[in-house]
Amino acid sequence: MPVYTCTAVQSTLNADTKANLAAEVTRIHSMINHVPSAYVNVVFHELPPDAVYTDGQPAQPLLINGWVRTGHPEAQSSQLVAEIAAAASRVTGIPAKRVLVVIQNSPAHLAIEGGRVLPEPGEEEAWLREQKEVD
Amino acid sequence: MPVYTCTAVQSTLNADTKANLAAEVTRIHSMINHVPSAYVNVVFHELPPDAVYTDGQPAQPLLINGWVRTGHPEAQSSQLVAEIAAAASRVTGIPAKRVLVVIQNSPAHLAIEGGRVLPEPGEEEAWLREQKEVD
Amino acid sequence: MPVYTCTAVQSTLNADTKANLAAEVTRIHSMINHVPSAYVNVVFHELPPDAVYTDGQPAQPLLINGWVRTGHPEAQSSQLVAEIAAAASRVTGIPAKRVLVVIQNSPAHLAIEGGRVLPEPGEEEAWLREQKEVD
Repeated sequence: MPVYTCTAVQSTLNADTKANLAAEVTRIHSMINHVPSAYVNVVFHELPPDAVYTDGQPAQPLLINGWVRTGHPEAQSSQLVAEIAAAASRVTGIPAKRVLVVIQNSPAHLAIEGGRVLPEPGEEEAWLREQKEVD
Repeated sequence: MPVYTCTAVQSTLNADTKANLAAEVTRIHSMINHVPSAYVNVVFHELPPDAVYTDGQPAQPLLINGWVRTGHPEAQSSQLVAEIAAAASRVTGIPAKRVLVVIQNSPAHLAIEGGRVLPEPGEEEAWLREQKEVD
Repeated sequence: MPVYTCTAVQSTLNADTKANLAAEVTRIHSMINHVPSAYVNVVFHELPPDAVYTDGQPAQPLLINGWVRTGHPEAQSSQLVAEIAAAASRVTGIPAKRVLVVIQNSPAHLAIEGGRVLPEPGEEEAWLREQKEVD
């Protein structure tokens, strides 16, 4: 269901670091938002040095943009963004001051996966049960 | 007006498939959301195999993110996302279980094209007429 | 805090143009939304010619997507998008009819930078003061 898009300059993240960050983001999202890890996507955009600017100058931030379904409880969303941000620095070694995590959302009924409209937050179990019956 | 961003691992989509998917997404959006096809943008991000993860493992999903103006009727938006998702599998041959389509939106007045603020949904005709008078 | 993502076909923008556009977007955002320029990020995605379509055909638009915190006054947001769009054409030489600027947003409490939840619009000064005390 969710998609996390991580943007960094090339060579900032090596192959192991990407795999480790993808694993951590997946674990955290799955745990906090009650989604099986099989539904968590993490994508990396690694761009040339002259394609990323902070303060109008070439820079090396780590920008993480997560898309989630609208309607998760606020405390849950706050915990989610905090743990993702902490994991980003912990896994990559990039200091927190260069890490920006943003969560965006749209209504579950505006997303389709596996040919089915996504469930509202809190209704995942019934949705997953139906999916299994189809498989 | 809209922008559809398709993300896949390199070699998942060949040149013909990309062109065909762009054409189908354009046709569907134009028909359902009443926007001339000249205003529909489709972008492909094709990433290395170690840049896309599902369930914490390298994977080959097709992730489609569409941006549309806020305010389309709900039934129209539901039809839009359903038809885009169906077309994605039909055109690419990627099974539905690996396809995720998400529609995001923001208010028309927060978008500018051709130097003019976008029209609210339903007000496209007057906007397009004015555009023609300028051309 | 904000992230502006500019998408264009490769060779549309040379190195100088990217640097100049990043500088202008940063200056404009900082001035209008009252954020120090050190917090403005600009990213460029430069894609192959067969990866960008308008009207179902390969095309060369300049697509700019900005993420900002929810809650800025509406007049401020309108000015922001207008000045970004004008700057995009002025700096790159790409005619306005091929430029699309879209601003998206999500609540400040769903974003973390420098290890801290972002301030609501209007509360930047206190947030920045606290940041300085930490540094």
